[in-house]
Amino acid sequence: MKLVSPLCLAILAAITTAPAVAKEPIEIIKPAKITAPEKVELGKMLFFEPRLSKSGFISCNSCHNLSLGGVDALPTSIGHNWQEGPINSPTVLNAEYGLAQFWDGRAKDLKEQAGGPIANPGEMGYTHELAVSTVNSMPAYQAKFEAIYGKNSVNIDNITDAIAEFEKTLVTPNSPFDLYLQGEQDAITAEAKSGYQLFKNKGCTSCHNGPAVGGTMYMKMGLVKPFHTKNPAEGRIAVTGKEADKYVFKVPTLRNIELTYPYFHDGATWTLEEAVNTMADIQLGQQLSEKETVEMVAFLKSLTGEQPKIVLPILPPSNANTPKPVPFGK
Amino acid sequence: MKLVSPLCLAILAAITTAPAVAKEPIEIIKPAKITAPEKVELGKMLFFEPRLSKSGFISCNSCHNLSLGGVDALPTSIGHNWQEGPINSPTVLNAEYGLAQFWDGRAKDLKEQAGGPIANPGEMGYTHELAVSTVNSMPAYQAKFEAIYGKNSVNIDNITDAIAEFEKTLVTPNSPFDLYLQGEQDAITAEAKSGYQLFKNKGCTSCHNGPAVGGTMYMKMGLVKPFHTKNPAEGRIAVTGKEADKYVFKVPTLRNIELTYPYFHDGATWTLEEAVNTMADIQLGQQLSEKETVEMVAFLKSLTGEQPKIVLPILPPSNANTPKPVPFGK
Repeated sequence: MKLVSPLCLAILAAITTAPAVAKEPIEIIKPAKITAPEKVELGKMLFFEPRLSKSGFISCNSCHNLSLGGVDALPTSIGHNWQEGPINSPTVLNAEYGLAQFWDGRAKDLKEQAGGPIANPGEMGYTHELAVSTVNSMPAYQAKFEAIYGKNSVNIDNITDAIAEFEKTLVTPNSPFDLYLQGEQDAITAEAKSGYQLFKNKGCTSCHNGPAVGGTMYMKMGLVKPFHTKNPAEGRIAVTGKEADKYVFKVPTLRNIELTYPYFHDGATWTLEEAVNTMADIQLGQQLSEKETVEMVAFLKSLTGEQPKIVLPILPPSNANTPKPVPFGK
Repeated sequence: MKLVSPLCLAILAAITTAPAVAKEPIEIIKPAKITAPEKVELGKMLFFEPRLSKSGFISCNSCHNLSLGGVDALPTSIGHNWQEGPINSPTVLNAEYGLAQFWDGRAKDLKEQAGGPIANPGEMGYTHELAVSTVNSMPAYQAKFEAIYGKNSVNIDNITDAIAEFEKTLVTPNSPFDLYLQGEQDAITAEAKSGYQLFKNKGCTSCHNGPAVGGTMYMKMGLVKPFHTKNPAEGRIAVTGKEADKYVFKVPTLRNIELTYPYFHDGATWTLEEAVNTMADIQLGQQLSEKETVEMVAFLKSLTGEQPKIVLPILPPSNANTPKPVPFGK
């Protein structure tokens, strides 16, 4: 033993650790690489821009609140004229890792997603035409679009492109679990470590895997037993028309799951304890003991990463050419 | 002439400038001095805290949006369940300079003001009791309150104290006009300079004076001619019960007025051009020429200062002890 030097031990440790890390079903989240900072800054303005809504009151951040883990923390969202939304608002954090966007995957990427709520009568209630007129009426916006996209480039394609570019920066690296995956044994508790073993052994990682611990596939909600809910959403069938896609939804990310309550597409479950038991039951046909539940929850809480540090954008003032908001009436 | 050194000239300039500055009816806005940064940080969290509302959706920032000059840029605000507010949301920027708070001055200071909307059924629709229970349910908030106010100190008094302490930092120094007042002759245009002379000569400074260019007194809206509006607000009479206070409102700040459209307590006037002409007409019995209007507006736009740089707070997650939001129904 004395023949082995500390350096040698370090190398051995690196060698023995490396394959183990490579085999883990969960990958670390990397910090965002910002290659187009002006576009990200413009996208941030538009993300916080309530004038992209008919009322002038609702912005992307209203339902994907970056103070609250990128969600509104409500069962379903509040839309224009206080309409009750049909589904739980998914977090915008790490959303880029999803194979598609929305619960039913009906938008292929963040850019396509961003155009949806603006023109949805039950959400921001505006039109793409009016959104473009609004942004285009302000010289400060015009100048930013021109610098990034060229002359006369304020259009819905570029508006959603900039929003998506901002959203791609909304990643949450360096969670305790990521530090643990990178070799910091003390970054998570013994309970969380046991929870992670359970998470793998029980089969949770079949669906919840990859850097976002989810978002890589679609899966039926209620695989073993039916999911009881009053929510009428039927999932992927609305996109594909296939009966086999009934109640099939995108597997949500579990990153920052401590922050993104209430849970499931109906937002009817408020605690992680209840959520993991429901999942074990209806997806895996298993019952968790109290101890297992505690461990699983401890593991899930270790997935809360560094939240994006957002300096609130200052938006340019409207002027006589800006379409007026219509908060009340028609 | 050759006997006068540059230093001497500089001293002479300082002497001759100083008395002129001292006489100006508008004073510069000074940057905020932060003496209790932890309290300010806590207050910022609470300012952005939608869980101080019944729905879990409306925060102070909803109607005093720091991306939009501290207002919602709507005629009157949207409250719980999309109720139509009774009056235009005044800006939170430089609000500390007001002799009292709200249009009718019914709150003596920012702290007293902060408690109003939380419990107003038409605004955040909550109760102080539930707001306290909500904040007190989260260990991260408890710890912050304990460090600042002592053990078991989560109460409405301290919640509003912290919010007010944050709001006191929301000042907007170094506007072009402030730089001009401090001797930078080129900080504002010739038009703005003429506008400032008009602003003084026409008598606007009788009411709009001090560091906030307003907020120092109450005044009848419609002093010379009646103000025509559909808004039923009657101003100070609601507070004092005196007939003489009918239609008497707090003189609003003109700081950042370019950002705080639409104008007047009814929010029915969208452009500064229209606003200055209405004021000249009904308060001073004067008509402005087109040139005078342009100059006055140029001056007013020079009052837009540096907007507070706000890093969005990250709020602690709710837990099983946190009262659930009631966005829909009772």
